[in-house]
Amino acid sequence: MQRLTIELGERSYPILIGPGLIDDSAGFEGAVAARDVLVVTNDVVAPLYLDRLLRSLGGRRVASVRLPDGEQHKTLEMTGRIFDALVQSRMNRDSCVIALGGGVVGDMAGFAAACYQRGVDLVQVPTTLLAQVDSSVGGKTGVNHPGGKNLIGAFHQPRAVVSDTTTLGTLPPREVRAGLAEVIKYGLVADAGFLDWLDANMAALLALEPAALAFAIRRSCEIKAGIVSEDEREHGRRALLNLGHTFGHAVEKAAGYGEWLHGEAVGVGMLLAADLSHRLGWIGIPEVGRVRDMLQRAGLPLAAPAIGAAHALDLMGMDKKVLGGRIRLVLLRRLGEGVVSGDYPAQALQATLATYFGGAT
Amino acid sequence: MQRLTIELGERSYPILIGPGLIDDSAGFEGAVAARDVLVVTNDVVAPLYLDRLLRSLGGRRVASVRLPDGEQHKTLEMTGRIFDALVQSRMNRDSCVIALGGGVVGDMAGFAAACYQRGVDLVQVPTTLLAQVDSSVGGKTGVNHPGGKNLIGAFHQPRAVVSDTTTLGTLPPREVRAGLAEVIKYGLVADAGFLDWLDANMAALLALEPAALAFAIRRSCEIKAGIVSEDEREHGRRALLNLGHTFGHAVEKAAGYGEWLHGEAVGVGMLLAADLSHRLGWIGIPEVGRVRDMLQRAGLPLAAPAIGAAHALDLMGMDKKVLGGRIRLVLLRRLGEGVVSGDYPAQALQATLATYFGGAT
Repeated sequence: MQRLTIELGERSYPILIGPGLIDDSAGFEGAVAARDVLVVTNDVVAPLYLDRLLRSLGGRRVASVRLPDGEQHKTLEMTGRIFDALVQSRMNRDSCVIALGGGVVGDMAGFAAACYQRGVDLVQVPTTLLAQVDSSVGGKTGVNHPGGKNLIGAFHQPRAVVSDTTTLGTLPPREVRAGLAEVIKYGLVADAGFLDWLDANMAALLALEPAALAFAIRRSCEIKAGIVSEDEREHGRRALLNLGHTFGHAVEKAAGYGEWLHGEAVGVGMLLAADLSHRLGWIGIPEVGRVRDMLQRAGLPLAAPAIGAAHALDLMGMDKKVLGGRIRLVLLRRLGEGVVSGDYPAQALQATLATYFGGAT
Repeated sequence: MQRLTIELGERSYPILIGPGLIDDSAGFEGAVAARDVLVVTNDVVAPLYLDRLLRSLGGRRVASVRLPDGEQHKTLEMTGRIFDALVQSRMNRDSCVIALGGGVVGDMAGFAAACYQRGVDLVQVPTTLLAQVDSSVGGKTGVNHPGGKNLIGAFHQPRAVVSDTTTLGTLPPREVRAGLAEVIKYGLVADAGFLDWLDANMAALLALEPAALAFAIRRSCEIKAGIVSEDEREHGRRALLNLGHTFGHAVEKAAGYGEWLHGEAVGVGMLLAADLSHRLGWIGIPEVGRVRDMLQRAGLPLAAPAIGAAHALDLMGMDKKVLGGRIRLVLLRRLGEGVVSGDYPAQALQATLATYFGGAT
């Protein structure tokens, strides 16, 4: 088992990574201080892991609630079902919410934990690669609104993250690939050496080779932890973690929530970010090609929906990274160094959008 | 105009109190930093004050949303209407939510501001006595759940509170009386001298005598500010502000949300707290009588619904002040000194409940 700590003063918390952790009751004894626990999970994950988790929580008073699976259910209304379960099971201020599942479950359960009685403990038990390398770490919680992704939410740090790497064996390959998009992201914004490692180990990751997975998850969490520790509430540097996300949100919204996986949309979004970075003269054609090649070898889609540049821009306009009407984007100064900038010619953005979404430049 | 500051480090904010502030555009220039503003109000307050507030916000891009009036509408679903308005009016992270109205509007608008894009600015413009002396100050926001009051919410401090005392002239007398219950509360938990002042000035307050109102609001905010500054997130001393609330929630739930005004229920709740404090030997019969007399002279109801002690205890059991199954209550060590305690004989609580709610002791 590997152990990292997210350093946030009083709110510091451990991330445990390793095979078989879901059955490790001693690990949960340390990670879950509360005696009363509500486990939030979904219809796909529950049959696989809920009973095993409940066994590992033995000795506590535990209730559980199952939500339907899928990003389209990440809504305020569905969060209401979690509140209902918290009330019905008479959870109080000293209770703990455990999120068992992927990013959707983690975001919703986390938001419910942030708001129930104005904040109760949260422990993340992510069962997807995406959640293990990204959404379970860093304290962002929230739900979607028809007007945009994650428009409603809270910052609420977990007390612990328990990532059992063996759960990835039951993950559909498409979701593994989507998770790899976020792994690639960490290399692109912060660590050229990690990109080299990914180039050499992409096949091993797709084959779910245990040692490769463990290294990729740990390194991803380390990079995210370092950035979040510096900027918990995203006033500055944390925005780097949104590489590909503003473009990606337009992709997801164009297709309708639930059609694209989040990581798939982020993958295409990173390609657009690379393209725009090239138009600004920051990276060359070979670097854009390398990004494309990595995404392709990870089995990720490379084409955005042909909705036209104008509509794409409109969809980006409601994204929450807009600052005073100006769209700030995460771009690449070089491979391994992201930069947040609103300082680019509108024409360059138009050209990138037209290239990928179609329509006049 | 009087000005207080709530001292919370980086999140410190001013409270402005005085006649005519709603028309004081210079005041809002200082209080509202944002250029994009959503005003949240309700159907009763909007015809009275919305246009005047909008004039005072001149130069900004302002949208507004009206909610139905009443505690029964303080729900997660209704908060969704505020999110819809924020999205439709394209508010971003640098926008500000202004709550124009009473405690219900303030709590819901505050909760929406806490969650929209994980937190935007909030300015409170309370138009009821209850909101001016209590709910607009201190950063508690939230909505009700069928299982209990304020079970869903967030701590989110406002950037400023602007209390126009002339708005109390349009307030139904019943709501003035309900607000006075909270004013009396501050005296009971923290300031015996203020109780003497209230004894001498109750008639002036009921007559909305301007100088008396201004003093009562200012002193109430000062007491609350002092307590909140010490304990923002209610880990300890802040719980004193809940005097009468645990009993009061049972009163409100028994009658159904919206039947009792919050302050009315708190008033009866304080009477139960005084009764129990007497049974513990902390205050005498004359002190209980003085509390009853003050509430009566403020025109507040003195009788709880006859639902029986057992049912009342059950309703109190789901209250969020329950700590590990033990009901902690705010009691009176003496008049002017509240104390939070779970250390009382169950029999004494039973006797108090039976006295007020009926049923066997």
